[in-house]
Amino acid sequence: MTYCIAVSVRDGLVLTSDSRTNAGIDNVSVHCKMHVLPTFDDRRIALLCAGNLATTQVVLEQLRRDIKECAEVNLNTVAYLSEAAEYLGRVSLEKQQRHASAGQSGFFPSATFLLAGQIASEPHGAYLVYPEGNYITTSSQTPYLQIGENKYGKPVLDRFLTADTGLDEAARCCLISMDSTMRSNASVGPPVDLLIYRKDSLGWDTYYSFKEDDEYWMQMRRIWQQTLMEGFAAMPGLNGREPLAFPPID
Amino acid sequence: MTYCIAVSVRDGLVLTSDSRTNAGIDNVSVHCKMHVLPTFDDRRIALLCAGNLATTQVVLEQLRRDIKECAEVNLNTVAYLSEAAEYLGRVSLEKQQRHASAGQSGFFPSATFLLAGQIASEPHGAYLVYPEGNYITTSSQTPYLQIGENKYGKPVLDRFLTADTGLDEAARCCLISMDSTMRSNASVGPPVDLLIYRKDSLGWDTYYSFKEDDEYWMQMRRIWQQTLMEGFAAMPGLNGREPLAFPPID
Repeated sequence: MTYCIAVSVRDGLVLTSDSRTNAGIDNVSVHCKMHVLPTFDDRRIALLCAGNLATTQVVLEQLRRDIKECAEVNLNTVAYLSEAAEYLGRVSLEKQQRHASAGQSGFFPSATFLLAGQIASEPHGAYLVYPEGNYITTSSQTPYLQIGENKYGKPVLDRFLTADTGLDEAARCCLISMDSTMRSNASVGPPVDLLIYRKDSLGWDTYYSFKEDDEYWMQMRRIWQQTLMEGFAAMPGLNGREPLAFPPID
Repeated sequence: MTYCIAVSVRDGLVLTSDSRTNAGIDNVSVHCKMHVLPTFDDRRIALLCAGNLATTQVVLEQLRRDIKECAEVNLNTVAYLSEAAEYLGRVSLEKQQRHASAGQSGFFPSATFLLAGQIASEPHGAYLVYPEGNYITTSSQTPYLQIGENKYGKPVLDRFLTADTGLDEAARCCLISMDSTMRSNASVGPPVDLLIYRKDSLGWDTYYSFKEDDEYWMQMRRIWQQTLMEGFAAMPGLNGREPLAFPPID
């Protein structure tokens, strides 16, 4: 499985991804799921991938070839991020359908993507492209998108992220969300990639790849666990509270 | 949907359940999912239910009728909790199969249960009964079981619960886990029922039903959110950390 987050706040973008892939529980490997595409200097576009690895690889390959061969539509010709999402959805659906039910009936090598970046003077943004090829973007109420194992780490994002959250703070929030997910789900694992884009810069701001034994990553996990433990210990007990007379026997 | 937790620690049991049911997103109701069965005084057995409401109701009805009519096997005749789980699994599977694919092909009104309690001098315990009728119990490494929307609230349980956690602490942990779930998933909602059983007491210890505007529940949610916000604000930033030169363009 996979866990990727794309945050789009006022100041820019924060992208986070894990690196564990598996074909069955007994076949686990490491593949980076964060990909920066080789586009012109007037744009920056990155992809985060979840789902069937064969599909995500062949889709990326097609996107790169379309750029290289100056295809009629490619990531350098689109004028808007939504157009990029539309194009990605089309390529993805075509690749999925090519192998659907080829070997076994009902098999569908589905893939889901997060596409984020900025094109020229258009606003920066992030899109989630579904296996069906359609897509959604963020809103000021919900400034993030997730793919893969999204539930474990969602409460943390819901608690902390707003459209006004700073980039560094949003990055820490994503790392905590990733930590929560990795604690409860063995199919999500390091290295954890983190990419920050500052709006209108048309250049990547900072990039990290945290291995399991990375000092900052370990410190961050330890401090957060300690913070929670101490906070939990300080919570008010039920002692003062009058219980109901009986549980409802029915 | 649903979220229920059964914790079995050294000192006893903590059961927690939400009360929101829905048949489609446009048909939402309130149904208590925690049920204490009317057994003899030598035993205490409670059920938490998830899944198809028609199935869980008819299963509960059958369990009560079997007790009342002194059926050959009922919750008063079983000598072990595992035997109770086996019996519950059998009844559940039979009720599910009766209506499977009756109206529409592929329809299966599946239901999942948590069964917890103590029978006479046997140890207290908790079981998760799958729709297929088989079941699992807790271990000293993982002293809890969940049914329904289990992912949002799992990191909190993994962080705090051990077999030695006290009952009051385990109760608070379950309420926080429920809070995290309710913040991120609209299909889980109040009242939140909480039932505590102290081992070898053969009587229920305390029972609470927290409505949305319950003072303790609101205070607990507020303090936990504040604790997290403050802890989050105090986390070390990435500033001191040298980023990698470039994101991997590929």
